[in-house]
Amino acid sequence: MTQNTAFIALDAMGGDHAPEPMVQGALDAVRLDGRAVLLFGRRESLEPLLKGVDYPVDRLKVVHCPDLVPMNAKPARAMRQSESSMARCFKAVKEGDAVAGVSAGNSGATMALALRYLGRISGVTRPAICLTMPGIGGPRLLLDAGANASCTAEMLAQFALMADCYARAVFAMDSPRVAVLSNGEEEGKGTELTKAAFEHISQTPLNFVGYCEGRDLFTDAVDVIVTDGFTGNVALKTLEGTARFIVAQLKVEIGGSLLAMAGAMLAKGAFEGLKETLDPSQYGGAPLLGLNGPAIIAHGSSDALAIRSAIRVAQRCAEQDLTVQIESALSQLTA
Amino acid sequence: MTQNTAFIALDAMGGDHAPEPMVQGALDAVRLDGRAVLLFGRRESLEPLLKGVDYPVDRLKVVHCPDLVPMNAKPARAMRQSESSMARCFKAVKEGDAVAGVSAGNSGATMALALRYLGRISGVTRPAICLTMPGIGGPRLLLDAGANASCTAEMLAQFALMADCYARAVFAMDSPRVAVLSNGEEEGKGTELTKAAFEHISQTPLNFVGYCEGRDLFTDAVDVIVTDGFTGNVALKTLEGTARFIVAQLKVEIGGSLLAMAGAMLAKGAFEGLKETLDPSQYGGAPLLGLNGPAIIAHGSSDALAIRSAIRVAQRCAEQDLTVQIESALSQLTA
Repeated sequence: MTQNTAFIALDAMGGDHAPEPMVQGALDAVRLDGRAVLLFGRRESLEPLLKGVDYPVDRLKVVHCPDLVPMNAKPARAMRQSESSMARCFKAVKEGDAVAGVSAGNSGATMALALRYLGRISGVTRPAICLTMPGIGGPRLLLDAGANASCTAEMLAQFALMADCYARAVFAMDSPRVAVLSNGEEEGKGTELTKAAFEHISQTPLNFVGYCEGRDLFTDAVDVIVTDGFTGNVALKTLEGTARFIVAQLKVEIGGSLLAMAGAMLAKGAFEGLKETLDPSQYGGAPLLGLNGPAIIAHGSSDALAIRSAIRVAQRCAEQDLTVQIESALSQLTA
Repeated sequence: MTQNTAFIALDAMGGDHAPEPMVQGALDAVRLDGRAVLLFGRRESLEPLLKGVDYPVDRLKVVHCPDLVPMNAKPARAMRQSESSMARCFKAVKEGDAVAGVSAGNSGATMALALRYLGRISGVTRPAICLTMPGIGGPRLLLDAGANASCTAEMLAQFALMADCYARAVFAMDSPRVAVLSNGEEEGKGTELTKAAFEHISQTPLNFVGYCEGRDLFTDAVDVIVTDGFTGNVALKTLEGTARFIVAQLKVEIGGSLLAMAGAMLAKGAFEGLKETLDPSQYGGAPLLGLNGPAIIAHGSSDALAIRSAIRVAQRCAEQDLTVQIESALSQLTA
């Protein structure tokens, strides 16, 4: 285990269950993974959680911020709170006190503040949220997962390039297969947007495999799925709804029979295995790709494991100089 | 059981497993549901399947068609085959020999031929495929499920009106809750298209509940989900991929442990109950709404139950004068 002295900034007050899982996740990252973490939040909320806990004080520090961004905050309001734990978290990255920022707070506010403090990489039209999902044969990346409801073909081509860099840097993929999400794989399918994106991405050096379909979020046909934030959101919410419905239905069916209930008890390990495979915490947060510095958006419901994973992703983005790699890939494209 | 003498036209040669499940589905519809069916297809393929079977010959008739549309046919090619079982099936509806047409053949070809022979209802810009899915509290309707990759707001408003008529006529819904699929429920979410559709549908007499999200394909918040055919296709393929992935994962997990396997055997009834709930055959085919006469697109993989259900849907559309209802609803809108 190598110990890092470069700090990851964590918004300890953002998240449905903050600050407990943030503090626990940071403790795990520091003690088990050798990371260094700055916890941004109210001293009076954070210090009691660290009291009596054994940890290296030089690698886990509380930075007191009197203010916080509520989970239901409007991004415009969050932008006016420059002393919130979320604002200070990304400001620390800008000022070089940390190499990456992580927040599980309101995602609109996180995007707005990360963009304000870090700014866009030169050549990036808009940053995009890149989500990691479980899939057969390895993780699957989908972007934009919701930052931009409407996109241009140029933006989709930039997303493809950025996700390619991210897949190589963080998941050590050799030559990620990149596809555009469409309503069929045949040429002639798609909308004006997907057709133009197809043309644009074909002209990049990426391993572009063409169109893919909604079912390829799980197949082993592609690694990176590029789409606009509207379609990406619909696909992800549909995925979530389907999984919930199936689990709820199985519960109803199983609850209806003693024999089935006994069977389900015996098969419990299998359900737990499934839960682990589907568990987004395994992959940590989603980076907002395209900023001058790593910004990781963790799910609002993040537990300690999800926070620890998000810190790992943040660290990996920083170590691999993802920002520089994206900048260089984009400049080659323009040249 | 009332016996109908109005015939439903069935393309007996269309479908991955045609003609067996088509003939069996038609036999079940005739003998168990009191329907009357015209089977369009090759005499030499169909008659052997009816040999020695006891059925009322006045309510199940073979109409010989020498030609058929292959499952992988291009719609343009299918349009040139005017003597195919598929073409003859919809031509029979046009000519009044049948009250509705059903095909499980190539869906692009089915749409093209149904449109050619039946034509659009006056005021309908484009017909739309309306899919029925299982959901908590009852079926959920989604359109457009793939007929039109790109849509205008006016088209989405027409889809909403047509699906409202369909939900009332076929599912006896009193006041179907209609929503536009979006990337969030709040106003301000959505694209230019969904925002304009929101405005248009707000001005109709429909029970419009605003935006819904991908997860509402399963919740009990809405009955009719309106979207463009691109987004509809992505959502449906994502749903399908998620369900398959979960089942495959459970099999892997269960296969890994004898104890879990024993448990799964005991819980088998629960899995079968789930399968039945998720089974699209329960709801039969998807109507192509907006044509001058009912045209039902059944899934290519339809079994006898799916065909029987599609015939039930076709019959119900005809009995309820769905075409007239849609025409009247649209003309009121224009007036």
